[in-house]
Amino acid sequence: MDDGLLSSQDISFLLHDWLGGEGSAAALEGEGSREAVDAVLELGERIARDCFLPHYKAADRHEPTLDAGGVHVLPAVRDALRQYAEVGLFAAGFAEDLGGMGLPYLVQSALFAQFAAANIATAGYVMLTVANARLIATFGSPAQVETFARPQIDGRWLGTMCLSEPQAGSSLADIRTRAEPDGADQYGSRYRLTGNKMWISAGDHDITPNIVHLVLAKVPGPDGALVEGSRGISLFIVPKVLPDGTRNDVSVAGLNHKMGYRGTANTLLNFGERGGAVGWRIGELGQGLPQMFQMMNEARIGVGLGAAMLAYRGYRHALGYARERRQGRAPGTRGGPPLPLVEHADVRRMLLEQKAYAEGAVALCLYCAKLVDGGDDPESRSLLALLTPVAKTWPSEFGLAANDGAIQVHGGYGYTRDYDVEQLYRDNRLNAIHEGTTGIQALDLLGRKILRDKGHGLAIAGARIGVACDRGAGSAECAGYATALREAWAGVLQTVRALEAAPGTSAFDNATPFLRAFGHVVVAWLWLEQALVAEAHRGSPYHDGKLRACRFFFECELPRAAQWLALVSSGSDVWAGADPATF
Amino acid sequence: MDDGLLSSQDISFLLHDWLGGEGSAAALEGEGSREAVDAVLELGERIARDCFLPHYKAADRHEPTLDAGGVHVLPAVRDALRQYAEVGLFAAGFAEDLGGMGLPYLVQSALFAQFAAANIATAGYVMLTVANARLIATFGSPAQVETFARPQIDGRWLGTMCLSEPQAGSSLADIRTRAEPDGADQYGSRYRLTGNKMWISAGDHDITPNIVHLVLAKVPGPDGALVEGSRGISLFIVPKVLPDGTRNDVSVAGLNHKMGYRGTANTLLNFGERGGAVGWRIGELGQGLPQMFQMMNEARIGVGLGAAMLAYRGYRHALGYARERRQGRAPGTRGGPPLPLVEHADVRRMLLEQKAYAEGAVALCLYCAKLVDGGDDPESRSLLALLTPVAKTWPSEFGLAANDGAIQVHGGYGYTRDYDVEQLYRDNRLNAIHEGTTGIQALDLLGRKILRDKGHGLAIAGARIGVACDRGAGSAECAGYATALREAWAGVLQTVRALEAAPGTSAFDNATPFLRAFGHVVVAWLWLEQALVAEAHRGSPYHDGKLRACRFFFECELPRAAQWLALVSSGSDVWAGADPATF
Repeated sequence: MDDGLLSSQDISFLLHDWLGGEGSAAALEGEGSREAVDAVLELGERIARDCFLPHYKAADRHEPTLDAGGVHVLPAVRDALRQYAEVGLFAAGFAEDLGGMGLPYLVQSALFAQFAAANIATAGYVMLTVANARLIATFGSPAQVETFARPQIDGRWLGTMCLSEPQAGSSLADIRTRAEPDGADQYGSRYRLTGNKMWISAGDHDITPNIVHLVLAKVPGPDGALVEGSRGISLFIVPKVLPDGTRNDVSVAGLNHKMGYRGTANTLLNFGERGGAVGWRIGELGQGLPQMFQMMNEARIGVGLGAAMLAYRGYRHALGYARERRQGRAPGTRGGPPLPLVEHADVRRMLLEQKAYAEGAVALCLYCAKLVDGGDDPESRSLLALLTPVAKTWPSEFGLAANDGAIQVHGGYGYTRDYDVEQLYRDNRLNAIHEGTTGIQALDLLGRKILRDKGHGLAIAGARIGVACDRGAGSAECAGYATALREAWAGVLQTVRALEAAPGTSAFDNATPFLRAFGHVVVAWLWLEQALVAEAHRGSPYHDGKLRACRFFFECELPRAAQWLALVSSGSDVWAGADPATF
Repeated sequence: MDDGLLSSQDISFLLHDWLGGEGSAAALEGEGSREAVDAVLELGERIARDCFLPHYKAADRHEPTLDAGGVHVLPAVRDALRQYAEVGLFAAGFAEDLGGMGLPYLVQSALFAQFAAANIATAGYVMLTVANARLIATFGSPAQVETFARPQIDGRWLGTMCLSEPQAGSSLADIRTRAEPDGADQYGSRYRLTGNKMWISAGDHDITPNIVHLVLAKVPGPDGALVEGSRGISLFIVPKVLPDGTRNDVSVAGLNHKMGYRGTANTLLNFGERGGAVGWRIGELGQGLPQMFQMMNEARIGVGLGAAMLAYRGYRHALGYARERRQGRAPGTRGGPPLPLVEHADVRRMLLEQKAYAEGAVALCLYCAKLVDGGDDPESRSLLALLTPVAKTWPSEFGLAANDGAIQVHGGYGYTRDYDVEQLYRDNRLNAIHEGTTGIQALDLLGRKILRDKGHGLAIAGARIGVACDRGAGSAECAGYATALREAWAGVLQTVRALEAAPGTSAFDNATPFLRAFGHVVVAWLWLEQALVAEAHRGSPYHDGKLRACRFFFECELPRAAQWLALVSSGSDVWAGADPATF
């Protein structure tokens, strides 16, 4: 049975033939030879397969526990993360002067993909720690970097991001955690924090001796009151154990028990029950949210890639099962041995849909990862900002649909806990919620990234789509796709114009179907790009499969975009105008 | 917080104003006064709320266990079913000479809906037992009815349906359980059964002292071989405890651990490990499948109604949460207290979609239940046969989508096991699999119910849709819906003509999108019918809600049907023609 990790064929196709192969800045080649990249990816695949995959089910069955000594996780989780640290993978994306390998973000993402596929809950500890260390490395003082980021880059400590609060949820402007000034020392301006943080993944555990919390909190004004809104938010480093070896005033108030991601200890943390947790401010006062948002693109692509890989592994399992399991016969025939499931048209439908969703989602996230490598290049930055809400959302929604299909292919077996597919589905259900729900992403796309951006990002996307369509127009296989994509893109632009003219804030009422349509058009574009690469290798089953998935997407999925856009363009108030009393 | 059971307003609207109110045979009025019906429904609601609902989470957390003494379930499950038996509800649908109340199927369904909403896993024991007893009552000898059906009608014993086998799954023609003749006695022709039956819900437990298994098996021919295909299948009564008080040769080989429905003991049963389980044949040799299929309509509507009620309860929970929870502000505003979630346009979108799916699904299943009450009336039978695969599938697929939306409205909380919505979602995922997967239902609809039926059932549906459209055409509110529905129905007929002309068996390649489209058109029709009733009460929030949900369905959902039909009409081989090597 296929283990469901990203296949070497897919890595080669995506990283080298597609994303590395264009004339534009080939991040891969800039940072090391293809051999060096392949070597680190092979190392990652081995650790993912040998250390992360084996406890996927066990970590789901044996959730973290809480007692007076704190949170305890399955020993296999600890062992896997130690192994990950030992081979230096926490450092993979950091600069060499921080002990890192300086890998391009695209390669880091391909590396992360393997761990997300193998065990998303254990991989969660990695993702948080790397994001935390990167944030400190970007905005912290040299002493903060040395003291709090380096141990994470080495994998000796793990990190968290403490944003949400029980009463605030997605609305960070409403957080109430207070940070009272408490002097300064070698680590910077010192504060005492009091408040509660909810949904804190990896908030406590017995994996590493220390945990670095990054905490959003508000410093009271001269009148003692917290500044309203998000402008009052600053960012603080609050370690579980202080540099002098004493315990900080951070305690675990409870564990959240979720439907999936059960191997990741998810906690409610109380700060300052005994006078105030010590924390050091990062950067300037009131910069908490901008600092956090600067890292948010990567975190959101990470969520999307995780969702994509859950879908990918589910698809590979379903495919393996459909090839082995024999059941039923072709319509109109009787007798003879049963056929493998994959011979049934409807099973092929489910598999092809999964392939188009899962591989489309992986392609989208890796495309965005490559844009991260574009660094300060304005075109890359602008396009990345535009695509980030799509990369977060599309894999979360359609990846889940792929996982649903993987269960269906397995029939009753897929619904049992003996197979992985039901867990992949449960795990994936979280991704449309955390790091900003689909509704929040839709407002971000339409509000910040399109209407406020005055069409700048859109124009860049349009130009790239135009290039792909021009290439497609000259191809026997892809000419029809190019035409359909041009038409779909014109529909997006027309809808944006209608929204620009919408009265008041009504443009936002139908932001989610707009996001869905936009996502489908973007993924169609990236399928066309992949088809243009695959076309040269027609006749090889692997490349024919890419062409078939592209055809499926254009034939069965892209038409949905027009329907969503029609609704949005109409300015319908079908739900926005519904009186809550009538529900 | 709303408990999520079917509201008395909905019962009144659906049963009395809509389904009871038409000139046609009003089953309700025929069998008893409205007061009597209301009294039994109120009794049911009370038992559902007081005895079934409270252990919904507990039965999920504490799955049945297996030891040398057999399967043990949570005591609360046993207590609830005893209570159900005590008030005589197992008998509700049976004739008075069998100790029953002779309730119309429509009323039975409304009754069942409450238990399915409250606790689908515990309600599963009821559904199986009633189906089992009804099958014996229909096809069994008087002695069989007296000995094996009566104790179930009284609720002293429970029953099962043993169809699937580990190697056969959906393909019943391939079952291998053997029944060797063993004489005859007062209960009929006696056999000794050997074989394994998989996915047997309620296959063993400590709820009642005996369990009546209905088992599909094959009687070997003179050469000792089993007859190939489904013609060789007969149906047998195999009790756990024989009438003489000794244990029959039936043993539990294992429990299946599922993603949901965890309170229903789901087993692998071995028959005949010690020489052969004693069973008595029901009816004639080789009639097993036709007998089973005669009951299948009801079982499938039952699955659909269960799915619909899971969706319904999830919706009611989401609505309650959205009214209470305050978070965020309107676009473009700052400061002031956070708004209740229900004030946000995107939350209204999710709620309205859930309402349209959940209430649409309930309406569909109750409409079919009313057709069951039509008995041997050819028009009712034919329409019921046509709609049954829709009633099974549509609520299972779109009800699950509603449950997905209920989680999303709850945000991170919805993903935790503290709230019911994640369990409702897990439970509902089964419904597209058991009692015939979506793919199987699609083949049934297109093959048996449309192409082989020569358009007879379609014509009846078309006539009723025409009546609804005629009524709608004269209404300010509904005229547009009537036009859209007529057009959609014409699209269905046109697609059927294209499929009739399709070469070979290729018509079946795209049966599932055909089923989806057909389902959406049917549900649109039933929303129009409900809107026509609601229209007269415009201004009451309840009825305005129905009108709004109907508008949503026509504006956002019905257009999807045209897209699916376009794909089907095109005869595309996008998946059917995909080479398995390319996946």
